[in-house]
Amino acid sequence: MAVRLKDIAQELGVSVVTVSKVLRGNSDIGDATRKRVLKRMKELNYRPNMLARGLANGRTYTVGLVVPDLVHPFFAECAKALGGVLRNSNRALILASSEDDPEIEKQEIRALISRGVDVLIIASCQSDLRSFRQLGDEVTPCILFDRNFPHLKAHFVGSDDTRVGELATEHLIKIGRKRIAHIGAKDTSPALDRLRGYRNALEKHDLASPSKYVVIRDRLEETGDLIGFEAMQQLLQLKSVPDAVFCYNDLTAVGATDAILQAGLRVPEDIALIGCGNFRYAKYLRVPLSSIDHGTAELGRITGELALDLSEKRERKPKSILVPPTLVARHSTVGDAARPKTKK
Amino acid sequence: MAVRLKDIAQELGVSVVTVSKVLRGNSDIGDATRKRVLKRMKELNYRPNMLARGLANGRTYTVGLVVPDLVHPFFAECAKALGGVLRNSNRALILASSEDDPEIEKQEIRALISRGVDVLIIASCQSDLRSFRQLGDEVTPCILFDRNFPHLKAHFVGSDDTRVGELATEHLIKIGRKRIAHIGAKDTSPALDRLRGYRNALEKHDLASPSKYVVIRDRLEETGDLIGFEAMQQLLQLKSVPDAVFCYNDLTAVGATDAILQAGLRVPEDIALIGCGNFRYAKYLRVPLSSIDHGTAELGRITGELALDLSEKRERKPKSILVPPTLVARHSTVGDAARPKTKK
Repeated sequence: MAVRLKDIAQELGVSVVTVSKVLRGNSDIGDATRKRVLKRMKELNYRPNMLARGLANGRTYTVGLVVPDLVHPFFAECAKALGGVLRNSNRALILASSEDDPEIEKQEIRALISRGVDVLIIASCQSDLRSFRQLGDEVTPCILFDRNFPHLKAHFVGSDDTRVGELATEHLIKIGRKRIAHIGAKDTSPALDRLRGYRNALEKHDLASPSKYVVIRDRLEETGDLIGFEAMQQLLQLKSVPDAVFCYNDLTAVGATDAILQAGLRVPEDIALIGCGNFRYAKYLRVPLSSIDHGTAELGRITGELALDLSEKRERKPKSILVPPTLVARHSTVGDAARPKTKK
Repeated sequence: MAVRLKDIAQELGVSVVTVSKVLRGNSDIGDATRKRVLKRMKELNYRPNMLARGLANGRTYTVGLVVPDLVHPFFAECAKALGGVLRNSNRALILASSEDDPEIEKQEIRALISRGVDVLIIASCQSDLRSFRQLGDEVTPCILFDRNFPHLKAHFVGSDDTRVGELATEHLIKIGRKRIAHIGAKDTSPALDRLRGYRNALEKHDLASPSKYVVIRDRLEETGDLIGFEAMQQLLQLKSVPDAVFCYNDLTAVGATDAILQAGLRVPEDIALIGCGNFRYAKYLRVPLSSIDHGTAELGRITGELALDLSEKRERKPKSILVPPTLVARHSTVGDAARPKTKK
């Protein structure tokens, strides 16, 4: 016969409420009691029936996450950090990938809501979002992640992308570059903000940004290497070739590097490159890549904590949390000067 | 008021069963009808209440997946392909990462079972598994993924890892190497099988495999670069330094490359290296990496289809599906000969 909460409580001489609180990960139970309860649950192989529990109090103890691409190291790393926070509080993460396709995204959001997730976290690839109806159902608490829609007054956790653009471009200016181009993405808030940051920095230093120096492309999350390659080839054909490029993300910078090297030019001597994301492999690349680190794991952790808050007390004022980015300089901008730092 | 299946059926002049089948993704509904129903559902913003549906027929239309590390490109890519198959059949993927820790893995498995997942897919990091009880509950259908426990008679989908080891080692022999080492992992079936394949190939060609040439390490999924670096340093201190190394995975090979270059040696002239996984960035590395491709997306797709089968008809004889690996040769083994091929 299945073990019940009541049996465990009786056996240990504590109340059912206490056992139940331990199960939910409430923090108002003493450590000794918690350990005793968890130990006994484990010994008895007790498994709460989450499904029935869900119907009784209207919660499912699940959090849904929709990202454009799971293989993208940024989203994979965020999902990992987020999952860790949820696991510690007995919540499960239901993961969906939109494949960077607004139609699939809508389908996934509908599916998650119909599963009754307590909180929905969305890194949306939609660009023409006009109302919440297009995202959720106005009942399920929603956190916009990485991509913001400021007019929605929703919770948002992301990096300070204007600062990302400024930081990257200022670094290129500081190493003496004058003709700085940008390979950017389309329509999403990080894309627009990074472009704004790029323009801010150029303006501040009285540098020109001819429109031909800004190349905007689609699908940089999934196939950034191929698209970065092609966009860089376009920049190489300009009469006045740029001497530096700020790329929307690391994968795009990887493709751009390839285009420069194949054209017989050098990185960074002829063209310096900086990406964004500071992904796991940046230092092992043919040309170790300078990048803006936007605190990936931190973003996942903060989002997880906000999701827990929202699943406890449903009403809260929309909150916007911006994680400040940092610069990681490697060979692709500072050349041999980076040597001692990249060793690790 | 919420739209009901009945309303949609009546309006379109089809039976409720038909609408319900479309919803479940059954294949015995004609394409025209399916499209008509889906279109109307979309227009009405219909959302099946999965939670109530789950309790009625004992299914939750969810599939659980436990992997050692989500940021590892192999598992991320598998999860993506698997998620795509499930999405097309209206199932959700609940994802959990064990962080390569057997204790967390057990906790995650218990959590998924208590959520009533229809099928459980596990890439286990446990090594001393003696019975199914340690994995699941004998009721939830279970697919072992990537890592097998042959004595369990469970469903298994993975690569033919003995063949992986043979293919990698035979390639190193073919390019003329005689002192071939292996940096391997601990205890899991891919680790043991790849080591077996390595030994098979050496034996077939009458080459020695001194025990010092086999370096076994832990946690190669999560921190393979650091561990590969350190393991390679150990191999470099041998009296008779190897002239080739077959590394357990790509990340380990990336770390090993770093150790070789830092020691002032060349890849592949002094030491050739081959990894496994053929990850997204292999061709962009400082030394583009030769690798064994074990059909990552294919593994995810096959696993998804088997999971759907199992969630429909619960009883089936254990089935073992092995995906054959292929060799992708790049600079790290064949040097400049790889040039024309790596361009893409």
